[in-house]
Order: sequence, then structure tokens, then C-alpha cells
Amino acid sequence: MKTIDSTPKKDGFRMPGEFEKHLGTYIIWPERPDNWRLGGKPAQKVFAEVAREIARFEPVTVCVSNCQFANARHMLPDEVRVVEMSNDDAWIRDCGPTFVSNGKEIRGVDWRFNAWGGLHDGLYFPWDKDDSVAQKVCELERRDRYRLERFVLEGGSIHVDGEGTLVTTEECLLSEGRNPGMTKEDIEETLKEYLGIEKIIWLPKGIYLDETNGHVDNIFSFVRPGEAVLAWTDDKNDPQYEISKAALDVLERERDAKGRKINIHKLYLPAPVLISADESGGVDAVDGTLPRNEGDRLAASYANFYIGNGAVFFPEFNDPNDAAARELLKHLFPDREIVGIYAREILLGGGNIHCITQQVPAPLAD
Amino acid sequence: MKTIDSTPKKDGFRMPGEFEKHLGTYIIWPERPDNWRLGGKPAQKVFAEVAREIARFEPVTVCVSNCQFANARHMLPDEVRVVEMSNDDAWIRDCGPTFVSNGKEIRGVDWRFNAWGGLHDGLYFPWDKDDSVAQKVCELERRDRYRLERFVLEGGSIHVDGEGTLVTTEECLLSEGRNPGMTKEDIEETLKEYLGIEKIIWLPKGIYLDETNGHVDNIFSFVRPGEAVLAWTDDKNDPQYEISKAALDVLERERDAKGRKINIHKLYLPAPVLISADESGGVDAVDGTLPRNEGDRLAASYANFYIGNGAVFFPEFNDPNDAAARELLKHLFPDREIVGIYAREILLGGGNIHCITQQVPAPLAD
Repeated sequence: MKTIDSTPKKDGFRMPGEFEKHLGTYIIWPERPDNWRLGGKPAQKVFAEVAREIARFEPVTVCVSNCQFANARHMLPDEVRVVEMSNDDAWIRDCGPTFVSNGKEIRGVDWRFNAWGGLHDGLYFPWDKDDSVAQKVCELERRDRYRLERFVLEGGSIHVDGEGTLVTTEECLLSEGRNPGMTKEDIEETLKEYLGIEKIIWLPKGIYLDETNGHVDNIFSFVRPGEAVLAWTDDKNDPQYEISKAALDVLERERDAKGRKINIHKLYLPAPVLISADESGGVDAVDGTLPRNEGDRLAASYANFYIGNGAVFFPEFNDPNDAAARELLKHLFPDREIVGIYAREILLGGGNIHCITQQVPAPLAD
Repeated sequence: MKTIDSTPKKDGFRMPGEFEKHLGTYIIWPERPDNWRLGGKPAQKVFAEVAREIARFEPVTVCVSNCQFANARHMLPDEVRVVEMSNDDAWIRDCGPTFVSNGKEIRGVDWRFNAWGGLHDGLYFPWDKDDSVAQKVCELERRDRYRLERFVLEGGSIHVDGEGTLVTTEECLLSEGRNPGMTKEDIEETLKEYLGIEKIIWLPKGIYLDETNGHVDNIFSFVRPGEAVLAWTDDKNDPQYEISKAALDVLERERDAKGRKINIHKLYLPAPVLISADESGGVDAVDGTLPRNEGDRLAASYANFYIGNGAVFFPEFNDPNDAAARELLKHLFPDREIVGIYAREILLGGGNIHCITQQVPAPLAD
């Protein structure tokens, strides 16, 4: 693997939309007992289910620490590839590479990772193993990479339409814990250079109480160029209402890189999901790691789905709105199977299906 | 990756000769300071040279612990793939998978590994990380495997001609530290089942003072079916003379699986190589690991070469016989480049180029 001293834009590369064809999907196996209850066992079952479901549609690789290797191999189906990889936690959307393509070849973009805020408001310390995940995935795939030593970004804080448009949130990208020395314009310039982007749309905030400083991938997702979903509630007493409304206002006002208005579909949230006493009690209390307290509201959202080859994998919460979410996705993705996975155990760790997956796009356009 | 509950012979698989076409080569990065002097730095340079040379001919993957990942990536050329893999030492010939082929597909044979003798006379403890290397390589290659939970074998203790013949040593395979509950016939049966072999030729011993209990790959190697080299000395005062003579007697008497006499070429050994005070002083002294004492004779042999696609990689010792070894190999492999690598640093760790490499054969015969 070569580390390239240029930028994707200069080299003619762009980040494909998630809905474009994949070579496969990467996942990291969850294990840290100060984030995942009961030593990670309940979460591991759900991660294994996610891996199994995606593997029906495209090759899946699960990265796992040496300590958990034998257990992961045992819990995962044969068709999933299991490879050793040290990690600090299981969010490969955020610490993994962002692949870019020139239509013939793909390369990885390896952002600096600092656990969602570093020493300012990061969620754990240290994060050095996570920060080498992107490089290691590029090695496994025999793909060259661009490395940004000085620019912090997580994959979950951006969504692209593959045609020059990127959507992100001010709450995250302008946060003190990311790139405090950079102006909004500096950040735009970096995103444009490293993702082959022309136009950036800034939503004010992400989902209420999202511990990532409001990652866009929990509130918004492109369905295809010019079409997207936005997490929504009609309950004006919920703090989420103002957040979703402000996002909608931006999206209705803005145009994408091609000058199109983006057609926005409201994806209704489940009722607030709170951590139970039992769930809180199963997590190791460790200084310096975000605690999981009884009664805390989790950032539950159907927008945290993952688009794979021929399917969409979305989180279910055993909520009446599960069915409405499925119906909307079925309508928006008529050519894909809609796979619902009961994902409370992923949510308890601080994210959802999109956060725990990372696509490797196919280099060749179909 | 699936673990198959059958045997290669039953499934129509056989171990190809090393001289048959490869998909690539695996190497493990050396680091343990109780075996490699000066924290492994001199050995790492030579391993990097071996990787670089082989990578001129076929894809090379270097497996490395998380601690050494950044250093290995820095020291290795871009074209070599670097992947994380926990290990106890760097001998992938012995702890890696032995691949078998049915002409369409390859699978790994994953022998039990016990550090060359387990608690009886093994060279270090523990060896659990090494024992999972074969499985992890199969995962990386997306190849199914046969696992022998109860049969100990190292890849360096066997050589095959790809046409039904296997050569090994009694010193190793009948040693107390391997499979003491099994008779010679039991062992033959297992080798035949798991390597698709018809005929086993037993040399009495390997190279004098070889710490592996006399691995065959340091004294003998097939060049092609019906043709092989044997490490040799004319010095009757050297204990090696009787060993090589006894091996030659067996090889001249025996026939291979196809009924052929094997044409044996004498590959003259270098003069005895002894550990210097300086070299000994650079190794951590740790109870339970084989010490590296000043003046100890090392098992130096040119037979420890590796055959790759289009090339042969052989160890040089800065000895007058280096040139003779090169000439003989040039004569025996007229269609391959003969690449000599000054390999004293590998030898100081207890093996040589063949011991640190493992081929992945191409599934399709050319």
C-alpha cells in the first residue's frame, strides 16, 4: 500500500454514493465492556446478525481483536471473512477509510480519528488503534491511500450523493473537538479536495443527544441523487422537532451540486428510547469513558440504515413506527430488499447499523 | 471460512510442489527480543529484503503484530501487503497453513503447532498465537480449511514432489515432542490423508544441531518431480557427514510414488557458522526460550531456499560455497532467476529463507 502525497480531486477521484455498487462491507466486532453491556455478548449477537444479513448480498469482512478472534469466528457464519485487527471500539463508519473512485481504481481516504472530540469531548481514551483501522483496511484491500495527518473527520459525519454534493452538520464539523484551528471555509476546501465534492450543505444539528456531536448519518441519508430522507417528529414538545425543522428548512432552501432541489422524505422517529436500569448495570464503569446511565435517552433513528447491493438494512426498535419506516424505505428503494434488524443493542453502544458498517465501492461504474 | 470435517484425500485434494505456480507468499515479521538480537532490527532488514525480492515475482503479504505494524509498514516496500496478525515468532513455514489443491480450488490444512516440541522440548512457551496463524491466513485468503486438533506438524518438516511423494525425517516426526502416542504407520496414514500422498521417504536426520529436531527443509529440497538437492559436506570429521551420507543412502535406495529413482544433487554446505559474542549479547535472556550462546554452531544450509514464480531465493553466508550453491541452482532451475540473500540474521534466529516463507499455490494448474 502506498501513501499518496496528492489529493483525490487532483487525481480525478470522487466518493461514490453508498447506493452505488459495492465490492463488499467491513464491520468491527464489539467487545469493550465499558461500552457494551455484559461483555459485549448481546451486541455481538446483533452484529453477527447484521453481518449475516449483509453477506446474503455482498462479501463481508469482520475485523476483530486477537482476544475475541475465536469467539467471533464461532458466532459468525462461515461465509463472513474474519480478520484480526486491533481496535478501540466497533465504529468502522467513523474510523475506517472513506473510499474514493476514478471509475477504474479505488483508493482510501484515511482521516485522523480522535474518538469524536479528542481530549476536548472525545468518548474514550486512547484511540490509537482505531486511528490505524483505515490504513489496515486499505492494506487488506491492497488499495493505496491518502492520509490526512492533521484533519479530523469521521465517516458518519458526512453523506454524499456521488454527484458532487455533501451533506454534513455544523454541530459536528465545527465542534471544538475536531478541527478548532480551521474556519468553515478551510473545512469545506478540505472536503472538496479529498472527496471530489463541489457543493456542501450544512444542516445545523444532528439527532438530539447524539453523542457524536450530531453526525449527519443519524438524521439524514441520500436515497439517490436528488432524493433523501430526514429523521422527523411532529411532536413540537420534543427537542428533536426544532432540530429536524431547522434541517428541513436548509434542505428546502438549498440546491445540490447539479443545481437540483433535493426531494426530502420525512422518516418518522420511534418514541424516545431510554436506557433501562438493567442495561445500565451491565456496563463497566470506567473513568474517561462516556457512562451509560439509567434513564438516559438514546439517539434512536431509522435514518441510520445501510444501503448494500440489492438491499437496505435498517434498525428496528420494536416501535409502532418500525412498520412505517419499512414502508417508506420499500417505496424509496423499490429494487432492493428491505431488511429490518432489531438493533437496540447497537443503539445502547451509541450508534446504529450505518455506524457499524463501511462499504468498499466497486471501482468500475456499472 | 468453513472448517471441513473430512480429509483432503477423500475430497480429491493434494499438496502441490513448491515449484508449481503460486498465488503469492506469506511472511511473518520478526520481533521477539529473546530470539532476534537488538530487538529484531537487523533481522527485520533482512526479512524486508526477502519480501522485496519475492514481491518482484509474486504478491507478498507480511503478517505483523499490532505493536510492530507501523515499523513494518515503514520498512517494507509499498508493493508488499502488510496485515495485522498476532504471533509468537516469525516461522510461517511451520505455523502457517499447508495449502492443498484439487486443480480448481485450494484449501488450507491447519496442523496443530506446539513450538517444535511443546512442553517436552519446544523452543518457547506459549505458542497459542502461532497456532492460530494458519486459520487466520485461510480467513484472509477466503479459503476453507481442514483442522487437525490432535496432530502436531510443521510445514518445514515435510517436502513433497506434488506427484504423491513426501520426504521427511525420523528425527523430527518421530520425536517425543510431536505425536508420541502415534506409531510411524499412524503418522504415515495421517500425512497420506491430509496431503494426498502415496509414498513417504524417511531420512534419518536433518542438519546437525538443527533446533527443530531436524526439519527436512534444511537438508533436502525437491527441484521438480524426480530431482532434488541434498545438503552435503565431504569433511568426514564433521558430524554432518554421517547425517548427509545416511540420507543419501536412503534416497539412492528408495523410489518415489511414481516408481522413479530420485536424481540427487549434492549442495555443498558453507563452513560451520558460529554465534559471535556480539550476536549472543544482543539477545534477551528469558527462561524457557532457547538461549543463543556465543560459539554455538548454527544449522547453516543452502538447502533452505524458497522457490517462487520465476525465481529461487537462497541464503548466502559470505562463504566460498555461496558461488557453488548459486551455480548449482542456476543449473537446476534454468528458467528461474537465482536470487541470493545474505541471510546470517535469519540463521541467527534458528532458520532460513524457506522457514520464513509460505506459498499459496494457484488453484488452477498451468
